[in-house]
Amino acid sequence: MSTAHAFAPGHLTGFFGAYPDADPRVAGSRGAGLTLSRGVATTVSTEGDPGVWLDGERASVAAVERVLAALDAPPLRVELDAGLPVGRGFGASGAAALGTALAADALSPGARTVAELVGVAHAAEVEAGTGLGDVVAQARGGAPVRLEAGGPERGRVDALNAPGSTRVEWVAFGDLSTETVLDGDTDRLTAAGERALAALCETPTLGTLVAESWRFARAAGLAADRVREAVARVERAGGRASMAMLGRTVFGVGRALSSAGFDPETATLGAPAARRGPDDF
Amino acid sequence: MSTAHAFAPGHLTGFFGAYPDADPRVAGSRGAGLTLSRGVATTVSTEGDPGVWLDGERASVAAVERVLAALDAPPLRVELDAGLPVGRGFGASGAAALGTALAADALSPGARTVAELVGVAHAAEVEAGTGLGDVVAQARGGAPVRLEAGGPERGRVDALNAPGSTRVEWVAFGDLSTETVLDGDTDRLTAAGERALAALCETPTLGTLVAESWRFARAAGLAADRVREAVARVERAGGRASMAMLGRTVFGVGRALSSAGFDPETATLGAPAARRGPDDF
Repeated sequence: MSTAHAFAPGHLTGFFGAYPDADPRVAGSRGAGLTLSRGVATTVSTEGDPGVWLDGERASVAAVERVLAALDAPPLRVELDAGLPVGRGFGASGAAALGTALAADALSPGARTVAELVGVAHAAEVEAGTGLGDVVAQARGGAPVRLEAGGPERGRVDALNAPGSTRVEWVAFGDLSTETVLDGDTDRLTAAGERALAALCETPTLGTLVAESWRFARAAGLAADRVREAVARVERAGGRASMAMLGRTVFGVGRALSSAGFDPETATLGAPAARRGPDDF
Repeated sequence: MSTAHAFAPGHLTGFFGAYPDADPRVAGSRGAGLTLSRGVATTVSTEGDPGVWLDGERASVAAVERVLAALDAPPLRVELDAGLPVGRGFGASGAAALGTALAADALSPGARTVAELVGVAHAAEVEAGTGLGDVVAQARGGAPVRLEAGGPERGRVDALNAPGSTRVEWVAFGDLSTETVLDGDTDRLTAAGERALAALCETPTLGTLVAESWRFARAAGLAADRVREAVARVERAGGRASMAMLGRTVFGVGRALSSAGFDPETATLGAPAARRGPDDF
């Protein structure tokens, strides 16, 4: 076999608390979000020029390069096909790292379990500074609730019992750097994230997730004016919306955004979770 | 909403060790198997005659009735559509219990997370005496490896990084009662299951899973003559096969059985895992 495939869903984080640690397997976040039917499809191959290509262009994706090094992979060509915007709160870098781990394992010495590969991708993403909790959420699928921070050895992920094919809508207004926010003072953010998580565990529904996410965005001081205006417009139309962490992206469940007159992008709640593709994928 | 839907995959157990406990949330099994694209589709409704129907006929499924009691559900009509044989090692009762939990939650007071519902279904299945590890495997999907026994609070489940759409084949020769085997002396069986699990963790591949499953079946003294003859026929054709625990069912991966001249039933490796259906399912 010279080629292998994988898919990892996008992940809209609704709220989170940051739990840094010197050990990247222990570092992570607690919080909740939505995984999406749209995500990153990864093809790895021992043929062709080695390196990383994103949507057909040569790219440097730090988390992907760290995954390849950790797996002791042979020189591989990694092609990432992003079905979602990169850098706008959809966890594209985590999806790329996780998809690369699942696919490259098939072409690397030894064999690893899914949890081992999720751990490799989680640590790579943490070390690259591009995310703290997307990878474990993408490995879970559905509407993941990250109850304990960290990779699979230490973290604990549950999920809402949300209906299949739940529609998710969003409008993206621009980038917000994950690195910049995570490098700043995260104490206020983490306190707000803990309150939101406690409320969600009390009433574990999609409605609570969106409402607590918006309470979090305001308490953490992360919502830009355009985001506030868009959420207010959805609320005036009788719906609920919040902001994807970390991007200037407003999201809602069902037809919350289209009912308020937006022309949103859409996906459904992600099922299945990240997975290796068939060999003839 | 008056109707809700769920699907849970079938689960072929390759090998296991039994870990009984007075607390059904702690009792369980360790081992490995394959979840299948074929399984049990469950529809629950507050309309129509309450009770449980299996493939259109009134039925008594102890694990399902225990789930409904545990959820404090209103009187519900539960329709189970089994896409797999019942009582032949496919985990149909676990799939029925888990599907009922996911769907009935939508029509019951409060809201529960997926892990809470998996815990309810696991305990119901253990108390009914019809299985020890199917429910947590069906909640995981793919090729689950049950590293620690018990429901979600105590158990730990990983999975092989198997290619998507992997074909699974089987031939069923008849029933073998799970209750009878689990009520007997399980020490020899559990020792053999531990050896198989250690070997699989060393080399976590589908090939190891099938080979160790067969070594387990022979060591545990569970393989009937017809099963031994069928596995030998597959091996003479250059393939590998084993026996589903607990049924007189011979299974293999890829075209192992059809290449040996059998006319097998087929499915693909289960992805996604058990899940609630869309409301318009």
